[in-house]
Order: sequence, then C-alpha cells, then structure tokens
Amino acid sequence: MKMTDIIMKKRDSETLTREEIKYFVDGYSKCEIPDYQAAAFLMACYFNELSHEETKELTEAMTYSGDVVDLSPISGIKADKHSTGGVADTTTLVLAPLVAACGLKLAKMSGRGLGHTGGTLDKLESIPGVSTALTMEAFIDQVNDIGVAVMGQTMSLCPADKKMYELRDVTATVDNIPLIASSIMSKKLAAGADVIVLDVKTGSGAFMKTLDDAKRLARTMVEIGKLAGKKTVAMVTDMNQPLGRAIGNAMEVQEAIEILRGEREGDLKDVALDLASHLLVLGKKADDKVKALIMLQKAIADGSGIKKFKELVMAQGGDARAIDDFSLFDQPKIKEDYLCQKDGVLAGMDTEKLGMASSVLGAGRAEKEDPIDYAVGIWVEKRLGEPVTKGETLFKIYANDSSKIAEARKLLDEAVTISDRYDGKHQLVYAEIDMDTADEQ
Amino acid sequence: MKMTDIIMKKRDSETLTREEIKYFVDGYSKCEIPDYQAAAFLMACYFNELSHEETKELTEAMTYSGDVVDLSPISGIKADKHSTGGVADTTTLVLAPLVAACGLKLAKMSGRGLGHTGGTLDKLESIPGVSTALTMEAFIDQVNDIGVAVMGQTMSLCPADKKMYELRDVTATVDNIPLIASSIMSKKLAAGADVIVLDVKTGSGAFMKTLDDAKRLARTMVEIGKLAGKKTVAMVTDMNQPLGRAIGNAMEVQEAIEILRGEREGDLKDVALDLASHLLVLGKKADDKVKALIMLQKAIADGSGIKKFKELVMAQGGDARAIDDFSLFDQPKIKEDYLCQKDGVLAGMDTEKLGMASSVLGAGRAEKEDPIDYAVGIWVEKRLGEPVTKGETLFKIYANDSSKIAEARKLLDEAVTISDRYDGKHQLVYAEIDMDTADEQ
Repeated sequence: MKMTDIIMKKRDSETLTREEIKYFVDGYSKCEIPDYQAAAFLMACYFNELSHEETKELTEAMTYSGDVVDLSPISGIKADKHSTGGVADTTTLVLAPLVAACGLKLAKMSGRGLGHTGGTLDKLESIPGVSTALTMEAFIDQVNDIGVAVMGQTMSLCPADKKMYELRDVTATVDNIPLIASSIMSKKLAAGADVIVLDVKTGSGAFMKTLDDAKRLARTMVEIGKLAGKKTVAMVTDMNQPLGRAIGNAMEVQEAIEILRGEREGDLKDVALDLASHLLVLGKKADDKVKALIMLQKAIADGSGIKKFKELVMAQGGDARAIDDFSLFDQPKIKEDYLCQKDGVLAGMDTEKLGMASSVLGAGRAEKEDPIDYAVGIWVEKRLGEPVTKGETLFKIYANDSSKIAEARKLLDEAVTISDRYDGKHQLVYAEIDMDTADEQ
Repeated sequence: MKMTDIIMKKRDSETLTREEIKYFVDGYSKCEIPDYQAAAFLMACYFNELSHEETKELTEAMTYSGDVVDLSPISGIKADKHSTGGVADTTTLVLAPLVAACGLKLAKMSGRGLGHTGGTLDKLESIPGVSTALTMEAFIDQVNDIGVAVMGQTMSLCPADKKMYELRDVTATVDNIPLIASSIMSKKLAAGADVIVLDVKTGSGAFMKTLDDAKRLARTMVEIGKLAGKKTVAMVTDMNQPLGRAIGNAMEVQEAIEILRGEREGDLKDVALDLASHLLVLGKKADDKVKALIMLQKAIADGSGIKKFKELVMAQGGDARAIDDFSLFDQPKIKEDYLCQKDGVLAGMDTEKLGMASSVLGAGRAEKEDPIDYAVGIWVEKRLGEPVTKGETLFKIYANDSSKIAEARKLLDEAVTISDRYDGKHQLVYAEIDMDTADEQ
C-alpha cells in the first residue's frame, strides 16, 4: 500500500477501504507517513468529504491509535458529555453533580479553553485547590466513590487525533464536518463511557456558524456513536449569545453554583438540565425526559446537587468552603461597567467577540501554553431582544490589568448591535438527534 | 502574511494576489514554509485551479526563485524548444542542427528521461564522448560559435520549481494543468531565450491523455509566455503511437541522423520540421512557415544540417565519426523479434507501455539516479492502421540483459491491439496555438 495512491483515490472521489484508512492513521501516528502527505490527504478530504462509512473507519482507527480507557472497574452505566465549545457555556459544572446526585456515574475527560471558548478544566481549577491532573486509578476510584470525576485527557489517548488536529490547524483543514466528527468521537470512544450526550453549538459564538452544519455534525457524530455501539444523543443548541451570564473561569463556576443552589434561572440552566435529562434516560435512571427533569429539579431543590458538587471539589483537592463563600476565589482588582450607547433593542451579539473580550482580559489563551487569570471576565447583563436605553450597563468588565481593558472594550463595541427591532429568530434548542433519527437525512 | 490564510483563500476559491503567491514561493524555497503547508496549498490548487493571472504570478515567482540565465552575450534572437515528453520523440536532435544551419541560434537546456519518456541529454550522451555538463560560459560561447548548444539545467535554475515538483510527485498533485504549465514555463523563462516553441503531446504515451487537456495546457503556457514578453507558439501533437521508430537512446540518435542525412521520412521528421519552421518564423529567419519549411528541407538536402550536427557533437567533446559509422555506438548483445500473434490491423498501441518496455530493458530510469544502457531499446516496425499478419515482426527488441526481456515482452503484449479495423481517429498535429489564439477559449 502506498500513501500517494491513497491520496489519489480520495482526490479522485473514490471510496477508501478500512485497510487504507487504518494504513494512513497507523502510519501517520508512527511518523512513517510524513506530515506533507497527511496534509495533502486532509485537504483532499476537505474537498471530497469522507462518507459515513469512511468517517466511522477513521474514527475507529484514531480511537485505537493509543490507549482506550477501560472503565469496567466502575459498576453500572458510565456516562460522558461533550460540547463543541461555546461562550459562557458551563453546562458540565451544572449537570455533572446533578446526574451523579441522581445515581448516574459520570466519568468525564475534559479539555482546556482555547481562543474564544472556555474549558471545563480551567474553570474547575479556579476553585482554590482543585486539581484535574488525576491518575487513571484515582479517576476510576473517585467515580466509584462519589459517582463523578473530571480529569484532563491523558497524552496516551488518541495520539493520532492529536497529531492530526495540530496539522489541520496549520493547513486550513479544520472546518470539515467528517474530520471534526471523527476527532471528537475518537476521543469520546477512547474515553470508554457507555452513554454519550453531545451538545453541538451553533451561531456567532460557535465553530459551526450555520444551523445546517451543526445538524450535520450532530448527525454524523450520533451515527458514529451508533456504529461503535454507544448510546449517543446530540442536541443542537444556540450560541448566538453567551449561554450564561458569566464569561470567565471563577465567574462561571459561581454562576453554576448559584444554579445548583436553586438561586438562578435562565438558558444555561435550561440547556444543562436538558442535556442531563438525556443522560439519565440513556443511563436508565429515568424512563423518559419528563421524569428525568423532575429528578434533576428535585436534586436542586433538596440540595443533593450542590452537596455532590462539594464532594467533587473535595475529592479533587479543592477547598469546598469556596462554594459557600465566593470571596475565597481569586478576585479581580478592577470592575468597570460597559454602558449602552443608544436606545433600542439588543438585536445582536457577536458571541465569538464577547469570548475574545474575556480572553483578552486574561480568562483565555491565544496559545496553548498561555497562563490563565481565573478572576477576570465579562458579565453579560442583557439577553437578545431586551430593550436597552442609553447609559445603562450592558456588560461588567472584571480585570486585573488595566492596559488590556481598551482592547476588550473595542471588542465589545464591535460585538453589540442595537437597533429598532429584533428579528427574534434565535431559539435555545434547535434539534435533538438520537440514534433513531440520525440517519434520516 | 500567514501561509494558513493563503491556503484558506485558495481552498475557498478566492483569488490570490501577486504578493501572496510570491510569499508562498519565496518562503517555500527558503524552507521557511514547511512541506506540509505547501502540500495542503497544492492540493487546494488542484481542486480550485489557479487562474491565468495566478498561474502567471506563480510562474514568475518560480522563475526568479533562482538564477535567470542572461543570454545577452549571444547576439541576435535566441530560440528554445520544449516537449512535454513522449516516446520515440527525438525532435530536438533533428531540429536543433537544422535551425542552427538556417541561422537561428538555439540555446537549449534539456532534461533527462524518467519513467516511460526519454530525455535529450541521455540521447546525446549516447554518442561516444559527448558531454552535456557545460559551464554557462562554455554554453554561451558555443552558441555564439556554432549557433547551437545543449546542456543540462543547472541546479541554480528555478529551485522553487524543483522543490515543488518533488513534493507534488509524492502528494498526488502532479496532474494539474496550471501547475504543470507554470513548472515548465518557469524553467523556460529562467533559461533566457527570446522565442519558444512548445510541443504538447497527447495520447496514450503522453502525460496529457486527452486532447482537451493538451490544448488547455498549450493555451496556458502560450498565455504565460505572452504575459512574460516571450514569443511563444505551441503545437499539440500525437502520442498515440511512438513518434519515430526507435525507442532507446543510441537508436534514436541514429534515427535522427538518418533524417538529417535525408534518408528517412515519417512522422518524427514531419513534427520536427513543423516545430523548426515555427522557430524560424518567430526568430525572423523566415517570413512564413512555408518559406521556413523550404529552408529546412534545403538544409537537409545540401548537407548543412548533418554538418551542423557534427559540429555540435564535436563542440561538446563527442566523436563525430560515430555519425557516419554507427558501429562506434554501444551495441546491444541480443537482438530478438517480437512477432505478430494474429492477422488484422494494428488498431492501437499503448505508447506508455512501449516506452516502459524500452525502459525496462535499461533505456530509461525508474528512479532519478538509475544508470542508463544506451544500446538497448525497442524498434517499432508498424504504424497505426497498417495491416499485419500473424508471424510478422512488430517490434525488434535490442537488449543486453536477457533476464529483462520477458518483462518487456509482457508490456509489448499488453500494449498492442490488433483488430478487424482501425478507427483512424489519430492525426499527427491536432492544434497550433500562437499568441493571438491562446486566449480565445
């Protein structure tokens, strides 16, 4: 088998065999196939998209390119959840303790923030003392113990995906649905859970800017999960405005805590509970979504959710007192308001720019090795469609470095659209795709 | 400027600027842009073809990526000729002495054979003593002296093209007309001649298998020549059968000598004189093609052509007696006939396979560093459309290594189609494209 022939086949729209895809993935992860051939191949895949079958084969080959986590020492059904990345999107911190409080085991491997999106690991680590650098043994023990654990993906998981993603990033081959789907799903499959819920974001703050692309990605991933024998559901949810109010690590944790305490309603809670209810159904803890939602609301009302969150924080070395006393988090030195510049209706928020504004203040990373400032971020006062008046506060800016505020303000200026009316086209949940509906289109 | 953005622009069918193309070519030849980004870019160019303007910019950037030959020490108009590569295609050895005998200076940089095609340098070097490794000074002196010189392309010419061609070869991005056109033309432009005639081959033995592709390549190259201020004409000629009778280095030289002596007619002579007549017109040695053809016929008849060929051989260190005495060439130890297996009409010759058969015997190279056996090759007895009878000789096999004959015979078996009738679709010259007609389509 020769890599040039495999590139040529894909270039000429022929279908690759399982063996050819495995040859590529194995050869590339062992550095036997050079980057330049992989780059040409990936660009050919960009133009002549991989079929469902080819995508499944690519995913499987990447899943087995490294270690596959064996969660069998954990009794019962193990659940996992993934978001394609959003702004003020901290659903994991809300749903993880809630589903665990409802008796479903959540063994979650998470990522760090990059660019305009936050990462669950960074957010959790903003709680004083919390570490997400668990050994696999500690991770499994913790899930057995308290029903929930969150750790970073180990380096030995999906090395082929890691190598390929880094190459795609510098060769303009990121934006391709089968490649995105197999990258995400190879990691989920290698992480070993039995049931998976996927949150595919769409809109101005998402990687999938159009609803059609988001649906297609969701369907492709559910299809892969199905072929791999994992119960998988995907929701397509809105990212045309920040999901919650807080954009920034400690701020988002505090917002999640307020939801768990039953003190805060809103889109973030609604999406988190919707995702969680799917998990409870897939994990056989509830017969249907309605019953699942009742269980989840109860876990908020009776305090078992916030209790589970404290257990999670303590199990991972954190100071649980911070959950009751936010002054124990890092505090920003500077708090400023961003005022509305005219009367009207909040008609648009370029959510990627809002994410960037928070990132510029220090909440996110431009490069992988950049440090994070847990205390800083943007608080979003208004939702799309709300009337606004000149001089009222649209955002609160929490900063530690005054020199960065001007750039953040400029991004906020660019992000906001105030007009006479709002078209009202956004909705919170656009689609739910399960294993029965994935292959309909 | 960032290479990822340039790849993305081409991927998304946007038009690249002169600066962006120059950034890529300069960066790539200086190894500042890595192979993997170049590979992704070239695959994007495969799918979203470069426009005429972009192709011109790419050609120019590659031309100036290394030395550009200054032929100004040679007085008068300097001519050059290029073939896209064929089998039994030794037009250069026929036309070079003839146009020089007619007073036009030919400063020709040539290549070596690779795969199924022969190379002028290898053929010339099959003449005892001839060297094509001239210094630039010797090359220029020789053109001033006798009107013609043939040398290998120096390493300092078009380094970007060399690097890019090697990458294309292993990333399935060779078969793309704008990339082929700019590769050829960058070398021609760097070689410094004023007038250029291009012979674009089409058919079973050519890189361009279809006539449409061959015409498009011809038009693209003439267009580039025009934009670069060089008088350029392209002919699209047939390669559905070997152009001459000899496939193999010394054999082809001898066939060319027989044409120059006026002893041999046929397609090779016709195409060579046609190309030469274009050169004489472009080089202002003849008012029109008819007058040019008369001059060329005269140069054969009065012996000035063969005399010029001897001067060329001597100037490049060769033994001119070989031109009169073919026994001074390397001789093959084995001569065998390949017999016709049934009665009928010779309806098809897979000319690439005929070239491969000769190459397998040792006349060509599979890899760049392989040695060449000058003596060996295939002699083609029949032309397409000729009646053939079982048992008559179709090919003569000249070999030195008996172990290679079986493979060559197998290729000949596969190459030949004998049927009841011949569709007669092939013609010798399909199109002539000059600077006035290039942009018509």
